[in-house]
Amino acid sequence: MRVIGIDPGLRTMGWGVIESDGSRLRHIASGACTSGGGDLGLRLLALHRQLAEILGQFAPGAAAIEQTFVNRDGAGTLKLGQARGVALLTLAQAGLAIGEYAPNAVKKTVVGVGHADKRQIEHMVRLQLPGSDPQGPDEADALAIALCHAFHSRGVRAADRVKA
Amino acid sequence: MRVIGIDPGLRTMGWGVIESDGSRLRHIASGACTSGGGDLGLRLLALHRQLAEILGQFAPGAAAIEQTFVNRDGAGTLKLGQARGVALLTLAQAGLAIGEYAPNAVKKTVVGVGHADKRQIEHMVRLQLPGSDPQGPDEADALAIALCHAFHSRGVRAADRVKA
Repeated sequence: MRVIGIDPGLRTMGWGVIESDGSRLRHIASGACTSGGGDLGLRLLALHRQLAEILGQFAPGAAAIEQTFVNRDGAGTLKLGQARGVALLTLAQAGLAIGEYAPNAVKKTVVGVGHADKRQIEHMVRLQLPGSDPQGPDEADALAIALCHAFHSRGVRAADRVKA
Repeated sequence: MRVIGIDPGLRTMGWGVIESDGSRLRHIASGACTSGGGDLGLRLLALHRQLAEILGQFAPGAAAIEQTFVNRDGAGTLKLGQARGVALLTLAQAGLAIGEYAPNAVKKTVVGVGHADKRQIEHMVRLQLPGSDPQGPDEADALAIALCHAFHSRGVRAADRVKA
């Protein structure tokens, strides 16, 4: 199973593609889409085009995205929401089912504790995905989200086998 | 000049296309896109497809969208932001420049006062666009946003003439 994880953001949108084959995990590619400055519509279009190209190039079969933490900064929530909407649309256009995970669930799954900091997440991403070299927290978070989805899907599949 | 106005929303997205020819305004078409229920990615995809079809059918040359009122309801702001991001992307994909107007600016331009209620907006939309018959506040608001953009563009053009 090939999974893309997305850490949504308007300025920078982290992405990471991994492959999960039984108990074996492999880093395929990762990076960050950027929207530059200027007109909001054109920034969203830039994010959409970069993400669509990534989906075309690496052809994941599943997607996962971070559930957005809603805080008291309404303007920030709106910006993030707009970028997240574009990410969800682009994934849906590619026919991908989308798993959503709260930040704490991602941390708990990948690091073992729900309050892990950025350094711990990056450390565990590097440990579990040899060869990955995330160039910033957005890329590391996106790989963590992909890992979280791979672990959860595996758990679901194992539970399915038990039921069957 | 043919203008599309958008009143963004996740459940219902109002739209209205008008034509402005000198001092003459004409209603072309209007309605509301709906996203139904289910998976968020698929709901956003449904909105995108409906809006893209409307743009293809009515070929506006300019677009205007309501600036979102950010309130203390973070979850609501996030939902609206996601739908708004999809609308902005779809307009940008069609090559349209997008005007953004605060709700109060729309009311002030179309009704004459910034605190006008829904009934007043619908009344003025019907008055200024004979033949329009908005079937709800989302459609009426979208037509009001298109009117606001047409009036402002006219003002800009008049000012340009004065300078030239």
